[in-house]
Amino acid sequence: MDKITGEIIKDTVSFADFKDHDGQIVCIKGYIHRIREMTGFAFVIIRTAKDTIQCVYAPEFSDYRWDEKLCEEACVKVTGKVVSSKDAKGNDRYELQIHGIDILSLPATNLPIVVNKKQLDNIQLSTILDLRPIALRNPKERAIFKIQEGIARGFREYLAQNGFTEIRSPKINFAGAEGGTNVFKLDYFGKEVFLAQSPQLYKQALVGVYQRVFEVAPVFRAEHHDTSRHLNEYTSMDLEMGFINSFEDIMNMETGVLKYIMNLLKTEYKEEVELLHADIPEITEIPVMKFMDAKELLMKKFKYNPTDMKDFDPKEEELLGKYAKKELGSDFIFITHYPSKKRPFYTMDDPNDPEYTLSFDLLFRGLEITSGGQRVHDYNEQVAKMEKCGMNPELFETYLMFHKYGAPPHGGLGIGLERLTMHLLGFSNVREATMFPRDINRVTP
Amino acid sequence: MDKITGEIIKDTVSFADFKDHDGQIVCIKGYIHRIREMTGFAFVIIRTAKDTIQCVYAPEFSDYRWDEKLCEEACVKVTGKVVSSKDAKGNDRYELQIHGIDILSLPATNLPIVVNKKQLDNIQLSTILDLRPIALRNPKERAIFKIQEGIARGFREYLAQNGFTEIRSPKINFAGAEGGTNVFKLDYFGKEVFLAQSPQLYKQALVGVYQRVFEVAPVFRAEHHDTSRHLNEYTSMDLEMGFINSFEDIMNMETGVLKYIMNLLKTEYKEEVELLHADIPEITEIPVMKFMDAKELLMKKFKYNPTDMKDFDPKEEELLGKYAKKELGSDFIFITHYPSKKRPFYTMDDPNDPEYTLSFDLLFRGLEITSGGQRVHDYNEQVAKMEKCGMNPELFETYLMFHKYGAPPHGGLGIGLERLTMHLLGFSNVREATMFPRDINRVTP
Repeated sequence: MDKITGEIIKDTVSFADFKDHDGQIVCIKGYIHRIREMTGFAFVIIRTAKDTIQCVYAPEFSDYRWDEKLCEEACVKVTGKVVSSKDAKGNDRYELQIHGIDILSLPATNLPIVVNKKQLDNIQLSTILDLRPIALRNPKERAIFKIQEGIARGFREYLAQNGFTEIRSPKINFAGAEGGTNVFKLDYFGKEVFLAQSPQLYKQALVGVYQRVFEVAPVFRAEHHDTSRHLNEYTSMDLEMGFINSFEDIMNMETGVLKYIMNLLKTEYKEEVELLHADIPEITEIPVMKFMDAKELLMKKFKYNPTDMKDFDPKEEELLGKYAKKELGSDFIFITHYPSKKRPFYTMDDPNDPEYTLSFDLLFRGLEITSGGQRVHDYNEQVAKMEKCGMNPELFETYLMFHKYGAPPHGGLGIGLERLTMHLLGFSNVREATMFPRDINRVTP
Repeated sequence: MDKITGEIIKDTVSFADFKDHDGQIVCIKGYIHRIREMTGFAFVIIRTAKDTIQCVYAPEFSDYRWDEKLCEEACVKVTGKVVSSKDAKGNDRYELQIHGIDILSLPATNLPIVVNKKQLDNIQLSTILDLRPIALRNPKERAIFKIQEGIARGFREYLAQNGFTEIRSPKINFAGAEGGTNVFKLDYFGKEVFLAQSPQLYKQALVGVYQRVFEVAPVFRAEHHDTSRHLNEYTSMDLEMGFINSFEDIMNMETGVLKYIMNLLKTEYKEEVELLHADIPEITEIPVMKFMDAKELLMKKFKYNPTDMKDFDPKEEELLGKYAKKELGSDFIFITHYPSKKRPFYTMDDPNDPEYTLSFDLLFRGLEITSGGQRVHDYNEQVAKMEKCGMNPELFETYLMFHKYGAPPHGGLGIGLERLTMHLLGFSNVREATMFPRDINRVTP
């Protein structure tokens, strides 16, 4: 070795390519997912990066002598002949007649849970999370995070195609973006700093540079409550766009993004979607309803007594989701014009009725997955609004730099990646859709 | 508005498409980058998301009456006719004859620095960083982070094409990945936790799930030293691959990634590359030298007295970079087989000579941009190595879960995104290539 060329020698064949190798000798590498010994032969299921491949060992077609060290979760290289047959429905199916097995590594001991069944049955979520590094070896579990990969990939791809620039905002912040108490404090060489709750202030500033920006990155919230839909660290998919004509532009961009994502999942993540029986929504258009109209609907149609006239509680979101599905034929509904008092200081008030804002939430099957809206861009207006909110504008000097030296009309939104994944897959707990969740009681593994 | 369709109405034309609109009336939106009043007419340079477009205002072709409020950094919508001419070299050039200007917003005051010159001249780096949100409005400054976007994009695209899965490891960690003192501590509801120094432990575990994984995400190091090449928060581009035949596989993957990135920059980021006069390296193959051979070369050929026989100092890296360029014709050189004592506990020792490791660094023009290598995959071997390093394996129970229940031969690497951007663009300080740098003295903006 005195030069590296970058040539990647592919010495294995993927299961998807078996059809092109029918009758040929090929090589695969993976974990032994399962061994089923039968009379006179054995099935060896190999788990590769994406598939589980059935291999058959029988003395009749193999000179290879079974090694007694072979066990589940051993890493092996299997050489064998691709053979095809027809399944009950007449479809081609492929398996490998084993000619040889090289052991690459062996586990030190047996797994504490069964990962080679269809799903992790009768195992508590807390145990699954404790054992996450190995629980993910179950094909259904690992498919969850392929779906999640697809969502984030779709978000990036669509936005890049629409002129957005990817940004990297710092996670160590001098001030909490949204203020409030649920911010993690960090000792930074004797100074007190904060972990980013959102890239809000940075993505706005960068609208002045790139017009349209996005970021997919971790954010941190010191949630004291242990709920099924909150995490203390999660992935925020954020976008911000300048030179908008109205806040409708932002909702159109989100609708476009979601259409693209769902289509990507249906095509390039088809196997995972099927494995998880995921109900991927069809999106043609998304209905829109004003906040106060929604409140009225809840009271009149659903006889629901609101606990809070400035926001929705989870029950109200659920009812609105049902209404959207049944009456409007949509899995999604935009609720717009939230009361000014309940939205952050950077939200633009509706010039026609400043009690309300040019903001929206997106509900997906009765769960809020997005908050967004138009932002204040005028410097004096922003300073005045901060003061009205009881904030000291002097502490936000670098944030206000953007407004002071010229900001276009703009707005944006954030989507919680794990929450969207959870709801898309029909889970009741966001931890199921989080690789390594952090909550008030959990920082491991 | 009662339905959102997701249709994005494009009411502006990009500069690149002017050639298709010659003689037509089009609309553009952007900042007024510069106004140059001449006798009887004026040039108005509009800064869009990517370009600076020359527009001409003259009463002869415009009914529009100049608005005295128009100023630099105002956000405007300009309507006008595309007109073409030939430049001195005979190339087509396009400008816009202004028919009308709508003011979308106005700055509250003038900029404290000049951003509309070719570059930010005679301004100290600390001032540029203090004013980052507006300093980035300079076309050269903003091009830096388009290049950075391209690097990260190339990394992701190439790996996705080569069967890698994107992962999201937690940034709030129960233990420092690499141990050591330069870790930020966080008060987590009364528990002491750490900010991730690297996704090392997680990416290894996920090799057991997806075989090949990558992540592009922030990492945190509590660097007490204020140097030109270190940051306290930076972006790490990490990959880890399982079922490798040798650690050469990892170097091949990196060489492939780098070729792909450089090609992407030369094609899709051509304008930014030209604007920054970036010297994008040609990569055909990358030479490889063993650590001890490099030390010998430094002593014999360069008469350099090493300060440390277990690692290189910056001067040595520089000399090796010069040697690679001059003698081997390469901007890159892999140095392999670093001494075991200087590499982390998870590094695999060379079975032929356990004083050294199956590890490598990649030097780019004399600067280390990558550390990587093969990892220990056998459980007992890893436990023994931890104990030899004075670590308590019991504290790493969740990490060792991967090894205990079966791990394939594997390895990986990390590339510092900002450091690579810095060196590619010929900067001497990594802060120039970091949007919002964090160091011992800086947490703003």
